[in-house]
Amino acid sequence: MDHTWIDSLKFDERGLIPAVIQDVQSNKVLMVAYMNRESLVRTVETGQTWFWSRSRNELWNKGATSGHVQQVQSIAHDCDRDTLLIQVKQTGFACHTGAYSCFYETVVGGQRNLGDTGGVSAMQPDDFSILA
Amino acid sequence: MDHTWIDSLKFDERGLIPAVIQDVQSNKVLMVAYMNRESLVRTVETGQTWFWSRSRNELWNKGATSGHVQQVQSIAHDCDRDTLLIQVKQTGFACHTGAYSCFYETVVGGQRNLGDTGGVSAMQPDDFSILA
Repeated sequence: MDHTWIDSLKFDERGLIPAVIQDVQSNKVLMVAYMNRESLVRTVETGQTWFWSRSRNELWNKGATSGHVQQVQSIAHDCDRDTLLIQVKQTGFACHTGAYSCFYETVVGGQRNLGDTGGVSAMQPDDFSILA
Repeated sequence: MDHTWIDSLKFDERGLIPAVIQDVQSNKVLMVAYMNRESLVRTVETGQTWFWSRSRNELWNKGATSGHVQQVQSIAHDCDRDTLLIQVKQTGFACHTGAYSCFYETVVGGQRNLGDTGGVSAMQPDDFSILA
């Protein structure tokens, strides 16, 4: 399999590139995680997301233990080639807290949905005044 | 203005936090850029996005020269408090290439839209076979 496009990406000084994971159906942003070259190759070859865990220093097949896997639908990179956008079909939920998206705490503006946090309370926004 | 939630965020060793910028209407991911504490405070106080340019080492008010400003609608952080998701109303386009989103080059799967790249050709995807 030809992975020349992977070689064209800009991995950072740790050999990592951030990946924004987006639900292909709702377009909701689910999480941001980091990939090294090997996890990106595995992602392409298996059709499921693999990341590099910066805390555990190991490859991590998202959902391998929980069953909450992400089936890759598309992979794009940005104009700088230093960030990935990966659209997935999410089984179950993306966040280890039980929330569908890791971005469940809205601190400024927006319609806050406490119901999808699995009981975690969102912080009180203090800056509504600046928003139209 | 109370910014205690900003103090609760995890900025990296460079004092930066990545921010995913999303179109509030289409939910399209427009770009990923980095904020330091000051750029985040300015973003909250002005209601427009401010970033820290890692290449120019300076604060950068997105759209200040081009007019392609981003009006902030909401700010969320993820479960780890080390990434921001900012929903905006985009004036004009987000990418300096003239594309609406910086993620205009799809390399695996998806429906590739060459028309919105401003003439820049997308790479040929080589890995359709792994995708359902």
